[in-house]
Amino acid sequence: MNIDMIEQAAGRLQGHARRTPLLSSPFLDDIAGRRVFVKAECLQHTGSFKFRGAWSAISALTDNALKTGVIAFSSGNHAQGVALAARLHGAPATIVMPSDAPQLKIDNTRALGAEVVLYDRAGESREEIGAKLAAEKGLTLIKPFDEPQVIAGQGTCGLEIAEQAAAEGIDQADVLVCCGGGGFTSGIALALEAKAPGLRPRPVEPEDFDDVTRSLVSGKIEMNEKSSGSLCDAILTEKPGDITFPIMHRLCGPGIVVPEADCLRAMVQAFVRLKIVLEPGGAIALAAALYHGDQIEGDAVIATASGGNVDRQIFQNALETYGDEI
Amino acid sequence: MNIDMIEQAAGRLQGHARRTPLLSSPFLDDIAGRRVFVKAECLQHTGSFKFRGAWSAISALTDNALKTGVIAFSSGNHAQGVALAARLHGAPATIVMPSDAPQLKIDNTRALGAEVVLYDRAGESREEIGAKLAAEKGLTLIKPFDEPQVIAGQGTCGLEIAEQAAAEGIDQADVLVCCGGGGFTSGIALALEAKAPGLRPRPVEPEDFDDVTRSLVSGKIEMNEKSSGSLCDAILTEKPGDITFPIMHRLCGPGIVVPEADCLRAMVQAFVRLKIVLEPGGAIALAAALYHGDQIEGDAVIATASGGNVDRQIFQNALETYGDEI
Repeated sequence: MNIDMIEQAAGRLQGHARRTPLLSSPFLDDIAGRRVFVKAECLQHTGSFKFRGAWSAISALTDNALKTGVIAFSSGNHAQGVALAARLHGAPATIVMPSDAPQLKIDNTRALGAEVVLYDRAGESREEIGAKLAAEKGLTLIKPFDEPQVIAGQGTCGLEIAEQAAAEGIDQADVLVCCGGGGFTSGIALALEAKAPGLRPRPVEPEDFDDVTRSLVSGKIEMNEKSSGSLCDAILTEKPGDITFPIMHRLCGPGIVVPEADCLRAMVQAFVRLKIVLEPGGAIALAAALYHGDQIEGDAVIATASGGNVDRQIFQNALETYGDEI
Repeated sequence: MNIDMIEQAAGRLQGHARRTPLLSSPFLDDIAGRRVFVKAECLQHTGSFKFRGAWSAISALTDNALKTGVIAFSSGNHAQGVALAARLHGAPATIVMPSDAPQLKIDNTRALGAEVVLYDRAGESREEIGAKLAAEKGLTLIKPFDEPQVIAGQGTCGLEIAEQAAAEGIDQADVLVCCGGGGFTSGIALALEAKAPGLRPRPVEPEDFDDVTRSLVSGKIEMNEKSSGSLCDAILTEKPGDITFPIMHRLCGPGIVVPEADCLRAMVQAFVRLKIVLEPGGAIALAAALYHGDQIEGDAVIATASGGNVDRQIFQNALETYGDEI
């Protein structure tokens, strides 16, 4: 993994992925006590940064591999990113999803042209089902994060952050990244190392799912005890990846751990002040910027807003519960 | 009014106003039966395109005029645009607002550094209060739409639409514009005339407030009978402006009139598919694109999304009422 792979991915994404805006509001600056910038990846195609990595990986395949098709396991954002990127390449996509995934996400993935294979989360292994399908049909597996071309695609967001921060006159700041398996964080970290070394990437994780934060402290891969039970579903992973962790360990500042309630508060702030829709996991970096500033250094902070695929009911609950605080 | 004024305004806005993205979603294309592009001005500073016109007008003032200060009448988006643009120029701003304006909008305008003068909508005239204050203190009045430098500022959005449409390969399409007094519509129309003559501007208005649509038919300025009673508060005006109407009459295609319920539906679509927050009046052009396509020509349509300053309760009601349709 190196900056050349990210720049090559940026070339392949040119004209296909969206260059998302870096947003700000004086009201958020007042809350944080420093300038706050939000990289709005919820505005990316399919509503999350995942489209970048999916496009990067799929656009690097041979014509034969494209013709045969791709496969991915995901209940959420990666599924939609792979489905759309595959469709736009004319490649068949198979997505293995748990049968208890939200119906809307299943419907969306199908509507984007993918074949959805449902499995029983309790009794079946998605890896086994996927491996069997991949072997039978010769499909190429697009992993969600521990895959060089996926990391390179997510890193293109870091190239944009470097350019957009420079345009705002910012050359020293913490860059807070919503962190699951570390594909987004490590890709951004590599891009910033090369293009804006004064910008320091820092993973942000939900309480009880702070595997990366703990791994950075211990210097080895640590696991989460729980596998579910947070509204931040988009960034719940068992542990950092074998490829992503060494990159994060070399380049990232300390992790920040945020309670779920602060994510919901940040969703409401993003709604009122930035006019963007965030899912809880996609709001966690903004939550750190707004409510955990004592752990942040510098006069400015950049928060990634990684996705906006939130269930309507969860969004309404956030507005109901925290709307009056604004 | 001409394209030179818009290009000069664009020069003054460079690095200050945001270049907002042109968003899209295959799901919206499916609803409309053609490609749909949304110019997301809700992501502009202060949550609406109004910041463009305010910055354009204020940045054209002399140092003396800036030092003395500016005044505006508005209960909404223009107020916030003027307040922020004035603050960033170091100019005192006085905003005359009705005492029954939403407390949040009053608070926001004050928080942006403006002096808010409240008046009783029933018993007092904001024009008289404003004229008196302007005369006493020598303040410069920044009109909301019928003012060349304001129109020039709004026209910078049209320059961006022309460039962004070209990047998408679109050179023939209707451009639907959320229309109140016509400042946004006429500015965009002048920009498109010069830069993308195949793009045809079309005003979109709420039922019962279709003064521009009727004026375009009759060829003279027509008035609305009602002055309130629509959720589309941002685009309710008595009549088109003396400057804006001739421009619209020369350059615009027929108006489109949209029921309020369709604006709420479009707000929900923007929430689910684009991850942006729109106010009812800011969603009216998207509503026309999605639900009134029989009045639109071409394989693609561009809808402006003019603002996102929506009361939380109205947004929640829209999600409750129409969320299950998605």
